[in-house]
Amino acid sequence: MSSKRGQISQAPTPQNTPSSVSGSYLNSKTVPTIPSTIKEDDDDAAAKKMLLSNPALMSLIEGKLNTLVGEPSNYIESLPQQVKNRIYGLKSLQTKQFELEAEFQIELLELEKKFHAKYQPIFEKRKKIIEGKQEPTEEEIEKGKELMEDEEDEDDEEKIVEVGDDEEEDDEDGEKKKAEDKDVAGIPGFWLTALENLGPVADLISARDAEVLTHLTNIKMEYLDTPGFKLIFEFEENKFFSQKQLVKTYYYQKELGYSGDFIYDHAEGCDIKWSSNDDNVTIQVEKRKQRNKHTKQVRTIEKLTPIDSFFNFFAPPVPPKDDDEEEEEDEEEEDDLEQRLQLDYELGELIKDKLITRAVDWFTGDALQYEFEQGEEELDLDDDSDDEDDEDDDDYDDGDDDDEGADGAPKKELPAECKQQ
Amino acid sequence: MSSKRGQISQAPTPQNTPSSVSGSYLNSKTVPTIPSTIKEDDDDAAAKKMLLSNPALMSLIEGKLNTLVGEPSNYIESLPQQVKNRIYGLKSLQTKQFELEAEFQIELLELEKKFHAKYQPIFEKRKKIIEGKQEPTEEEIEKGKELMEDEEDEDDEEKIVEVGDDEEEDDEDGEKKKAEDKDVAGIPGFWLTALENLGPVADLISARDAEVLTHLTNIKMEYLDTPGFKLIFEFEENKFFSQKQLVKTYYYQKELGYSGDFIYDHAEGCDIKWSSNDDNVTIQVEKRKQRNKHTKQVRTIEKLTPIDSFFNFFAPPVPPKDDDEEEEEDEEEEDDLEQRLQLDYELGELIKDKLITRAVDWFTGDALQYEFEQGEEELDLDDDSDDEDDEDDDDYDDGDDDDEGADGAPKKELPAECKQQ
Repeated sequence: MSSKRGQISQAPTPQNTPSSVSGSYLNSKTVPTIPSTIKEDDDDAAAKKMLLSNPALMSLIEGKLNTLVGEPSNYIESLPQQVKNRIYGLKSLQTKQFELEAEFQIELLELEKKFHAKYQPIFEKRKKIIEGKQEPTEEEIEKGKELMEDEEDEDDEEKIVEVGDDEEEDDEDGEKKKAEDKDVAGIPGFWLTALENLGPVADLISARDAEVLTHLTNIKMEYLDTPGFKLIFEFEENKFFSQKQLVKTYYYQKELGYSGDFIYDHAEGCDIKWSSNDDNVTIQVEKRKQRNKHTKQVRTIEKLTPIDSFFNFFAPPVPPKDDDEEEEEDEEEEDDLEQRLQLDYELGELIKDKLITRAVDWFTGDALQYEFEQGEEELDLDDDSDDEDDEDDDDYDDGDDDDEGADGAPKKELPAECKQQ
Repeated sequence: MSSKRGQISQAPTPQNTPSSVSGSYLNSKTVPTIPSTIKEDDDDAAAKKMLLSNPALMSLIEGKLNTLVGEPSNYIESLPQQVKNRIYGLKSLQTKQFELEAEFQIELLELEKKFHAKYQPIFEKRKKIIEGKQEPTEEEIEKGKELMEDEEDEDDEEKIVEVGDDEEEDDEDGEKKKAEDKDVAGIPGFWLTALENLGPVADLISARDAEVLTHLTNIKMEYLDTPGFKLIFEFEENKFFSQKQLVKTYYYQKELGYSGDFIYDHAEGCDIKWSSNDDNVTIQVEKRKQRNKHTKQVRTIEKLTPIDSFFNFFAPPVPPKDDDEEEEEDEEEEDDLEQRLQLDYELGELIKDKLITRAVDWFTGDALQYEFEQGEEELDLDDDSDDEDDEDDDDYDDGDDDDEGADGAPKKELPAECKQQ
């Protein structure tokens, strides 16, 4: 089933508009669904009469109803040959649209690469500050402090945070502490803390992972020559594994999805060269003594059990092959694999688009507020189109004209003549 | 509350990658949430010991815990002044990122306008075919027919659709019908049918609306000179209203949102010049006779009640002002307004990005399958990160070494050395 893989990661067009809106339509649980049939108010006898006297409209609606019972082709089939030909013509025309959209995606990718290059000096300076190889200037410190104070003021207007005063106190009773501070290089645990604020990633971080991740000194993204990108995790020398970098690579499919977007093809991880089984945080080592029944000699065996770990991110799930033979596979297993793939792509996106671009806000937790508030706003988004239905069948008081203007129209809420704002 | 308006339509970065993934994170109900604290396996005594012996790490985790109880600033406040200064430095650095991202958005908008111009000849030809002013070429018909047959084959492999044979039959017993077909110009009801397949829009279309919408001959989009776009609905002459065009305009805010995207500012509709109250499908007219108690004269009065209608799309809700005075407004009312605004933006997006670009597929219903399948795939997306947790506490059989390799490692599912694919 060639469409199987696409389904996992088909995506809305990344057009230059607020995209949460169409995103919410695509990602929400209740829509898109097969649309309900045209609403017919029972009171609406006049409209029904009009409808019945208009066979063309009626047949359109019937055609529509046919599509609803799962045979969309019937409607098209029922059309006159001439009309069918015109639809074929439009379908053919649409392929030109697809071709242009592919060109657009290539140019968009080039535009992103161009700006990615522009972002690099910022990210490199960030890395130096985090690692303690460079200090921010006085001016930068002042500006950043103002920004953070402004944000705090915005976030909780009621709570008066006297940051300035706090610092004075620190200066008085924190002398000894301050002296020790001189030894702190950079921002310890910067990336660990940032990752821990990034919901779905944080869920994967065990206490053992956290200790390894204190050695994470940078996360960066690079585009591939083919469509795709890699995430590079840079580590300082540590006792757990020998590599300086762990790399996760995401490849897109060559063909665009239906919406004109790239679709994920697969991801590749890397071998982590753990120093020992005990250092390997993706397994649990259980040592047991075993006595040979015959020789009575005792030997120690290690039982290794794979466990949940952030570092399994570097051993991503493998998408199913496009073979029809696979059809017999357990459906539950398939669903599970799709979910794991989806999560893996989601994690990659989050790190690429959210974490790397706003790392300091994930470290401080400020990013959470933006993302979290948005999540809240979009609850219950789907049933709002029906909100006003309740008023439809309201019985109005026939004898009481008090509410009404001289012409019999209600005084307010009449949308008959569109309000121009 | 200056962030209020932004919340409604804050959107993920429209970067050139499959975006359903990050979209699902942002739009789903369960994430983003305040992340749960670091997982600690009770068995994991060794890790705990390591943790306790590492005050830096411990304080990091405590800092993290502090942020979880709603006082993120405490953690930052507790850091040495030097480290705090570095964070301020990063925060300041991040503003440069914002500035570059604004440049990116402007260039992206230009790129979209450039391609929008390239799409126009396609859309204009489509319009002519739909209106019956131009016929597709033989070649276009053949190509489109092949495309649609291919899609049908893909969609239901089991059902053998013999389109060719059907047509032969038509030719035999459909002689009389065929003769009449000659009179059919273009594709009647094209846009009505397409709109009826577009879930959230279809929900708004009443039977009376449908009759008006049979006169809809084109929907097109134009960019504004300022960030934003307008949707233009073109109508043939009809008895319901006098305009040839109904226009809905969406304006973006001048400042980008946190994620680097445009945010909706507001939408504007247009006055629809309905020929009469009876033609106005956004109101219900109830005629009642009323006898004057004194003169005994009978007069007919019309009671007009606003009703749900697709055409209310041209009277969009008005976003609340940024005044603090508004704070006292009914919270329920505010939520309702936000939902209506969200729906209004969503409808605009759908028409702009989905309907206009794939109109023929919405007409045939083919688009439904793509969008619908995707919707299905993304159900239950949010709890997948926990799917593997169940295995965490599995008791393995201590006495049974049969499953294990010579080194004591289980034979399969060991992700310790990352699988390279």
